Amino acid sequence: MKRLTPSLTRREFLYRAAAVGGSALLMGSMNAWGMGIASRTTTPPVLAGSGKGKKVVVLGAGLAGLTAAYELGKLGYEVQVLEARPYAGGRCQTARKDFKLHELGGEAQQCRFDVGQYINHGPWRIPLDHQSTLYYARQFKVPLEVMVNENDHAYVYLEDGGPLSKQRLRGAQIKADMRGHVAELLAKSVTGHALDTQLTGDDQRLLLDYLKHEGALDAGDLAYKGRSGRGFATNPGAGLVPGAGTPSDPLAFHDLLAARVGKVYSAVQEFPMHATMFQPVGGMDAIPRAFASRLGGRIRYHAEVQRIRQGDDKVTIDVRDTASGALSRVTADYCVCTVPLSVLRMIDTDFSDGFKAAIKAVPYAPVGKIGLQMGRRFWEEDDHIYGGHVLTDLKGINTISLPSGGWQQKKGVVLGYYHYALDAIEVSGMTPGERTEFALAAGEKIFPAYRASYESSFSVAWHRVQYSLGGWAEWTDAARKSAYPILLDGERRVLLAGEHLSYLTGWQAGAIESAWQQVETLHRRASA
Amino acid sequence: MKRLTPSLTRREFLYRAAAVGGSALLMGSMNAWGMGIASRTTTPPVLAGSGKGKKVVVLGAGLAGLTAAYELGKLGYEVQVLEARPYAGGRCQTARKDFKLHELGGEAQQCRFDVGQYINHGPWRIPLDHQSTLYYARQFKVPLEVMVNENDHAYVYLEDGGPLSKQRLRGAQIKADMRGHVAELLAKSVTGHALDTQLTGDDQRLLLDYLKHEGALDAGDLAYKGRSGRGFATNPGAGLVPGAGTPSDPLAFHDLLAARVGKVYSAVQEFPMHATMFQPVGGMDAIPRAFASRLGGRIRYHAEVQRIRQGDDKVTIDVRDTASGALSRVTADYCVCTVPLSVLRMIDTDFSDGFKAAIKAVPYAPVGKIGLQMGRRFWEEDDHIYGGHVLTDLKGINTISLPSGGWQQKKGVVLGYYHYALDAIEVSGMTPGERTEFALAAGEKIFPAYRASYESSFSVAWHRVQYSLGGWAEWTDAARKSAYPILLDGERRVLLAGEHLSYLTGWQAGAIESAWQQVETLHRRASA
Repeated sequence: MKRLTPSLTRREFLYRAAAVGGSALLMGSMNAWGMGIASRTTTPPVLAGSGKGKKVVVLGAGLAGLTAAYELGKLGYEVQVLEARPYAGGRCQTARKDFKLHELGGEAQQCRFDVGQYINHGPWRIPLDHQSTLYYARQFKVPLEVMVNENDHAYVYLEDGGPLSKQRLRGAQIKADMRGHVAELLAKSVTGHALDTQLTGDDQRLLLDYLKHEGALDAGDLAYKGRSGRGFATNPGAGLVPGAGTPSDPLAFHDLLAARVGKVYSAVQEFPMHATMFQPVGGMDAIPRAFASRLGGRIRYHAEVQRIRQGDDKVTIDVRDTASGALSRVTADYCVCTVPLSVLRMIDTDFSDGFKAAIKAVPYAPVGKIGLQMGRRFWEEDDHIYGGHVLTDLKGINTISLPSGGWQQKKGVVLGYYHYALDAIEVSGMTPGERTEFALAAGEKIFPAYRASYESSFSVAWHRVQYSLGGWAEWTDAARKSAYPILLDGERRVLLAGEHLSYLTGWQAGAIESAWQQVETLHRRASA
Repeated sequence: MKRLTPSLTRREFLYRAAAVGGSALLMGSMNAWGMGIASRTTTPPVLAGSGKGKKVVVLGAGLAGLTAAYELGKLGYEVQVLEARPYAGGRCQTARKDFKLHELGGEAQQCRFDVGQYINHGPWRIPLDHQSTLYYARQFKVPLEVMVNENDHAYVYLEDGGPLSKQRLRGAQIKADMRGHVAELLAKSVTGHALDTQLTGDDQRLLLDYLKHEGALDAGDLAYKGRSGRGFATNPGAGLVPGAGTPSDPLAFHDLLAARVGKVYSAVQEFPMHATMFQPVGGMDAIPRAFASRLGGRIRYHAEVQRIRQGDDKVTIDVRDTASGALSRVTADYCVCTVPLSVLRMIDTDFSDGFKAAIKAVPYAPVGKIGLQMGRRFWEEDDHIYGGHVLTDLKGINTISLPSGGWQQKKGVVLGYYHYALDAIEVSGMTPGERTEFALAAGEKIFPAYRASYESSFSVAWHRVQYSLGGWAEWTDAARKSAYPILLDGERRVLLAGEHLSYLTGWQAGAIESAWQQVETLHRRASA
């Protein structure tokens, strides 16, 4: 067996550089040490050589663990995945009929949705920029459908929106009217010669042309008077209803400004939120299921990691079977540990004090979601909203998101809230029943049919979920400087992987790309 | 049998009012005559009474004919639909393996796409605003999927785009940079006190706040310096790649203005183009098929209408069987004629001269489309474009549209052009093979893999298609005034319906809503 030789000098240097905090120096030296593997974002690394005869134990069957095990397996490594839960996926979970969740210190929940109804209470979106996630969906032929992440037809509802408070505004109204008023203002600055020193006459003419189009300004007086994109009061139709329909009146500029709603919508969605966004048909857990069926018996479920020890030439993991209580021991040449840092810091390890401190330095995000099965898709039938997010400042709600599938069917599961930080902490103290009431009381302010249509709920507070203890790693700038490079380097025969070791925290792509990187690192070290 | 009493006085009045051209007077009087049935846009009319014992012949099994037959059937009328084609749907067609089309005077085409591949060469989009179309999809449980009608990740490619010519720009780049530059300009007008007379200090502060967000302006100097929404040069990933990725440089404001690309994208999609847009899974013809299976034997195919005659108490239709050549005669109490006006004007009728003139007054749009089966989804694999439209000024192309289904599968059918007017006329003169070459020569300028991936094509020039003779009715303002109300009134026992009798021409919703209106009119007259 080849000896892995983690240069003590190198690790010492890393700790020192981290303490000094010079990240340019640090990154330069990591490159010099061969740690600066270029991040792969679209396809897994293509590696020479073989892992035959070497065993890797992977801790955790979330996306990072599954990816690492799958790719290492392809390289010829003997792989064993230890997963504490009875299923694969980690935080990538889909709640459907009979799915069980027992939050720490909370009531047990068993999902009572109808067959075919579900909520992705973990990751729920695959952006087109996350080619790594799409890569496996393609490899494993996981059918995808569009996840409607942007819907200008959905409502914005503000309790504290000044003159526009407590109104159901459509996103398109806000967008159209803000753009219209702003275009009018700038167009009049042009014609009033306020921009003569900044723009040539040609550019002014071209700008006016653009503004007329962008703001749908009146060709004559350059005023914004509404547009069909903000919606008609009456739609055009057959017979004698005229083609222009009945136009609806724009919201006043001052009201829009005072309500601060312009910021709700941007013409441009930032990375990685822009369309086209996807979701697997039938639930996000289709992806870990596809991995798991390929890994088969190499995943051991109910296997809770109790202790991690490293010798000179092997790693030893003590495991408790959560079903039988039986204890056992697994040894391997290397270990890829994908356990969230929030959990790892409570496991008995022989990591160095510096490494343990780095693990402890990373806070995890409190995150909560609730799925509400509705007996009638009132948002489609009554409001003609198909998918997307209803944005609101209703305390603790943040968004009410509507399902992007099962179009026009009878029932559907609405995401009743999706909150972080203090909101998540507060609501997580409630029982499942109280959370439901909390969500209904808010939702019915926006949708009259909300409470009457409600049938059953399923909620999660990720910071209270065993083996997760948080939604995702929430790096501080300080921890990125000090802890990140240390964790990235791993310790001796143990490498870490997961969304926490990426700049895509909270996304499956972060977990996958981190695994890709660590597979490459492990293989290089093992082949050295 | 009840006698239908179309008041001669009324019709005479209509002709006279149309001649005078006073549409307000006309509409007022039509209301007075009970013709002003409110347009229904969401659900079919709920009518009292029964049509039992009365027979209606419906000419044409397009969406209007199918809707009329289905709704009249529900009311108890005996319904017979005469359809010249061997299938229902009219212009709502889906070309898949073995679909045949023989344009007038052209080469016969038989679609050679792989099983599972198709192109909707007629209607291809169902906007959320078209609740009437969605109504039947819901009633008939036609599975829908999102049709990606807006995709900021798709390219804009201009041959004649000044300084930005012959570049593959992403929609998001153009949007982000135009919004950024414009926001910067207006923000600096605010801070330069150019708007002090127009806005209060409070509103100026709120506007600045909005502009910083909308334009992603630098908080310090209010300059636009790019944003993640326009795309990174390198995406953020795992390992040491920093979170912000590598930013990409904005396009210069002057170049954007000179290229006139700002107008390509609007922050607001006008009615009815905004998301969420749908398509039936597997092809648009799922909708007429659903109607047809419910109407069953009441649709007679291969039934070409040769002659329309009206007596005092019945309508007589002479029919030629296009398969056998046999002639036959159908009589009914009423007729709903949904034959496009472009075709109806060549049929032998005993309509009054005024009615015939009205039928002739409406021009039809030349429209062409081509579907290109590609052996590899290079637009997804190489360019990460998932659905949506590549906009271009390449002569005769207009748009290259990418399929909104079969995500990440091997093959797909691209819409190679979608053109109207002169472009459509010119390209329609080509053979199918020449059209394919025309489309490939353009497409390969944008996508290097375009020609090499091409496998087979299917094209249509709607103005050359028998029984259609055009894409849709293209009303002139003059014809709307003169011919429209006359056609809307029908003549004696014959009522007309179709997209041409709506303000939603070219849309299935227009056909459906027109049928709803004429069903109501017919039932009221028949019950009178």
